Amino acid sequence: MSFVSPGTILVLGGARSGKSRFAEKLVADCGLERHYVATGRAWDEEMRDRIAQHRADRGDLWTTHEEPLDLVDCLSSIDSEGRAILVDCLTLWVTNLMMEELDMAAEFAALAEFLAGAKARIVLVSNEVGLGIVPENRMARDFRDHAGRLHQMIAATAAEVYFVAAGLPLKMKG
Amino acid sequence: MSFVSPGTILVLGGARSGKSRFAEKLVADCGLERHYVATGRAWDEEMRDRIAQHRADRGDLWTTHEEPLDLVDCLSSIDSEGRAILVDCLTLWVTNLMMEELDMAAEFAALAEFLAGAKARIVLVSNEVGLGIVPENRMARDFRDHAGRLHQMIAATAAEVYFVAAGLPLKMKG
Amino acid sequence: MSFVSPGTILVLGGARSGKSRFAEKLVADCGLERHYVATGRAWDEEMRDRIAQHRADRGDLWTTHEEPLDLVDCLSSIDSEGRAILVDCLTLWVTNLMMEELDMAAEFAALAEFLAGAKARIVLVSNEVGLGIVPENRMARDFRDHAGRLHQMIAATAAEVYFVAAGLPLKMKG
Repeated sequence: MSFVSPGTILVLGGARSGKSRFAEKLVADCGLERHYVATGRAWDEEMRDRIAQHRADRGDLWTTHEEPLDLVDCLSSIDSEGRAILVDCLTLWVTNLMMEELDMAAEFAALAEFLAGAKARIVLVSNEVGLGIVPENRMARDFRDHAGRLHQMIAATAAEVYFVAAGLPLKMKG
Repeated sequence: MSFVSPGTILVLGGARSGKSRFAEKLVADCGLERHYVATGRAWDEEMRDRIAQHRADRGDLWTTHEEPLDLVDCLSSIDSEGRAILVDCLTLWVTNLMMEELDMAAEFAALAEFLAGAKARIVLVSNEVGLGIVPENRMARDFRDHAGRLHQMIAATAAEVYFVAAGLPLKMKG
Repeated sequence: MSFVSPGTILVLGGARSGKSRFAEKLVADCGLERHYVATGRAWDEEMRDRIAQHRADRGDLWTTHEEPLDLVDCLSSIDSEGRAILVDCLTLWVTNLMMEELDMAAEFAALAEFLAGAKARIVLVSNEVGLGIVPENRMARDFRDHAGRLHQMIAATAAEVYFVAAGLPLKMKG
């Protein structure tokens, strides 16, 4: 991959690491018009609660978009100079793509290509999920592989990459 | 949260990462009277062996206290200038609180408030558990959430935060 | 442990973190004769596919050795000035040792002793597996413990240690 994505920032972290809050701060601090792309599907009450809580925490300065699958299409429709877009999160998007049995490599390549040409500042949040014991079920192993490949692909061209733990960002790149 | 906890150090790490040994060295190096607060309950032989081994490894320079639940109460009774207290570890304390179905938010807030006013040097060890696949059972997910929230809360005001892997400390803050 | 292993580099990372590719680059960049020691056993088709893919990705400049158990013996037979050896990976070796119920402490000590006296540049890749929820089965917990102990032992004397996430190396030591 030879292109660069000067407007792209990748924020990785574990569950409840404070990665979303850190990413929101990155967006807020850059002073652009704020857009939030939620990729999560509200499968159950637990998930609905989490989404509603996140939205309440963000407040009114954000325009929220919900897009579980056609992420590039959604981002394209918002993409514009003067805007900052927060995608929260890539791992939920990967989950949704797997559920629909879509072509992961093609979807990832399309996202990488979009990011390389994007006009907006784009901050992508994702869960690091590959640092535990190898999962016993195949789908979980495939998910780890997909997520890991996507992270590598985006990190390779991103302007900045952060790893967040306990709410503290560690700069990996940039 | 606007207060700071100038005497607090948080040491995060995975299983067998060397986090406890690093934390013990931090305490030993500061030259104060050493106190060790063990939060683990010896549920079974495996656990009893681990606790006994840890105690043998520490040696005679430490005063050991065992407190699975009332951590703030235990810390308050030891807290004094000229002392260093190692709490090992927060994740076992979280486990114990959950078993007793106590109010996690209230317990965490009380600990944070205590740390902000503590006179002793307090080093808290905790397991980072949020970097694997989402666990299938609800209790494990709740545990990850509680641990992550507690880490963020303590890291926000701590003087220093370390992430330990392979026995090597990475300074996240301080 | 008082010895040092000036030719040893440890590369830790999660699943699909890009750790193997980074380690291969370390070896390629040092300009020595390249040797690759694969510790993985092809238990099933999934594993065979991964191994074949890795080999194809490396290309013709490497001499490949397969050794699931007698790692020190294999390394000793290759060890020579002017050579660089990549071991991929330690966690698979640990798995194989456990399957054969070998004496882990003795095996680890023998490897550490070999590394301290090795003439070749030796890059060891391993999975960090201790950052998720405590596994429910005992064998997985033992595996985490063994892997963690081995990482600490090697990191203590290695010249350099890296933690790789999203393809990006974070230098922990060196």
